[in-house]
Amino acid sequence: MLATIIHGTRDIRLEEVADPAIALPTDAIVRVVAACVCGSDLWPYRGVTATNKPRRIGHEFVGIVEELGSEVTSVAVGDFVIAPFYNCDMTCVNCRNGVSTSCLAGGWWGAKGRDGHFADGAQGEFVRVPLADGTLVATPTVPDDALVPSLLSLADVMGTGHHAAVSAGVTPGSTVVVVGDGAVGLCAVLAAKRLGASRIVAMSRHADRQAIAREFGATDIVEERGDAGVARIRELSDGIGADFVLECVGTEESMDQAIRSTRPGGMVGYVGVPNGGPVLPIGDLFGSNVGVNGGVAPVRNYIDELLPEVLDGRINPGLVFDLELPLAEVAEAYAAMDERRATKVLLRP
Amino acid sequence: MLATIIHGTRDIRLEEVADPAIALPTDAIVRVVAACVCGSDLWPYRGVTATNKPRRIGHEFVGIVEELGSEVTSVAVGDFVIAPFYNCDMTCVNCRNGVSTSCLAGGWWGAKGRDGHFADGAQGEFVRVPLADGTLVATPTVPDDALVPSLLSLADVMGTGHHAAVSAGVTPGSTVVVVGDGAVGLCAVLAAKRLGASRIVAMSRHADRQAIAREFGATDIVEERGDAGVARIRELSDGIGADFVLECVGTEESMDQAIRSTRPGGMVGYVGVPNGGPVLPIGDLFGSNVGVNGGVAPVRNYIDELLPEVLDGRINPGLVFDLELPLAEVAEAYAAMDERRATKVLLRP
Repeated sequence: MLATIIHGTRDIRLEEVADPAIALPTDAIVRVVAACVCGSDLWPYRGVTATNKPRRIGHEFVGIVEELGSEVTSVAVGDFVIAPFYNCDMTCVNCRNGVSTSCLAGGWWGAKGRDGHFADGAQGEFVRVPLADGTLVATPTVPDDALVPSLLSLADVMGTGHHAAVSAGVTPGSTVVVVGDGAVGLCAVLAAKRLGASRIVAMSRHADRQAIAREFGATDIVEERGDAGVARIRELSDGIGADFVLECVGTEESMDQAIRSTRPGGMVGYVGVPNGGPVLPIGDLFGSNVGVNGGVAPVRNYIDELLPEVLDGRINPGLVFDLELPLAEVAEAYAAMDERRATKVLLRP
Repeated sequence: MLATIIHGTRDIRLEEVADPAIALPTDAIVRVVAACVCGSDLWPYRGVTATNKPRRIGHEFVGIVEELGSEVTSVAVGDFVIAPFYNCDMTCVNCRNGVSTSCLAGGWWGAKGRDGHFADGAQGEFVRVPLADGTLVATPTVPDDALVPSLLSLADVMGTGHHAAVSAGVTPGSTVVVVGDGAVGLCAVLAAKRLGASRIVAMSRHADRQAIAREFGATDIVEERGDAGVARIRELSDGIGADFVLECVGTEESMDQAIRSTRPGGMVGYVGVPNGGPVLPIGDLFGSNVGVNGGVAPVRNYIDELLPEVLDGRINPGLVFDLELPLAEVAEAYAAMDERRATKVLLRP
């Protein structure tokens, strides 16, 4: 089959690799219907994190179950399934605590798992799915093609934006600021709206992303950053800052922006992968009672809640995909996101 | 009147100072019935933080209202009152948000306030109290002397331990670890018990403090620290760590202990004054979804909830005072706490 391999900085290739096969009775083989490129894929693409040897890449996909191990009971061959950006059993104590990203048996796409077998990267034609009963969620029927982008968003960005809002503890009637206007930030706007925030400020300088933010429920747009951004947020929030700020970037600057935009006693919900390790200024946090909560989003735990709203059209997070390409053009997909010609690219094998 | 002045490292003196007077119509003058020495007072005492010039010290007191400004309505001359470790108006947006430590008009004891006038330190005979309507809470009647220690604890340590538990979000049936066995840590045990935690682990190496922790509701004692401490906590909590960990020290080591003792998805509630600025390891926090929430405790906001339980004896946080001295022996009070001969010293002017 064909699968995407990153060889180094800005070196993405679609190559022939071995077809996956059932290795354990808890596995499934899924034919990928749609995958995509994640903002976090851009870190190795840009060389911000090193790629020491060629490796498979991609961690978001939806697809059709092609084959099942003998012990899998929750999905059937032919089912349309959503996979989170990791695999997990949903039975261990961490999964039961709602933190399936810390699954004691789980692992990551494009890597060898605790089970000793390789789980394919998602930007390819097929994926061997470990722990299929826990990892995969089937839709009731094979969905209309128009729903695929929103269903794919449940694999990562919508669940991740939701996690930012849940981690912050967004409450009805509250004021929420979202730092970051990538796909996750936009989904965080939608998540804040779902949770009843009455004022939602999107920090964005891009007209097209501002438009999606407005459609998702943003009431205000702030284009300023740094001190000027903090000043504008305070103007919009009784002079003290927002109740909740959702950090969806992962840089030191964005975390600083988030913390300084939060009111005393407020909470930062963060899901931006910390890149370069921003240092949290505990003295400032302590003095103002600003909390920081979040992390790698346990999106599998959120699919059950979000899927019905996608299926009945109440939410349409798939709007964050503004470019669709065949898998053959995966290198162009990375380039388009790197050069900010696209917010998020959907790939069709 | 007599008041305590810190002149430098291990140099505490009781000296004659000017009597306070009403400066503004919102002021009160309170005669101190009891004050105490705080763990945070030991930072300048030990020279960990510099004392550049002699200054008044002490921030916890209860007393009797002696005189009132013309606009004060919530307390009367002769009332027994509790003051939090700061002053606040309880009407600004931050006070109304429950964060009176960030009061837009408030200030600190032993310092000149935003009102341009000096608010006395608490380790003295009298205190000028700014914003008396917001700052002071009167008891229904002048209480029995035996209640004074517990009432005094509401000025800081009980409210601060409670804040650690509230910031962590302690829930009924949960497992809670308390790092720190000083007065605040012991009160955090009591607070976790009040909030329904079913397993409460006190990390302590001192038999006398362990006994108080047990009386306050601790179900387990862990004497180990560092890696061994983390290993013991995990043994007690399904191998994954505690749901909530209350950090009540403020050192880099204690915060590290707290974070590593928390399960994935759990929360650290911290109230230890960050001394030396511990760096939060955001990469670890991100990977395990451990949140960090807390700060300088808005104890004034908690007095209304905790006072009835002190008055009717449901809680007895005053047990943390294990030495009582006349104010004339304030230097000995500091020495006793510095040398760990006492957990917390109550001073009677």
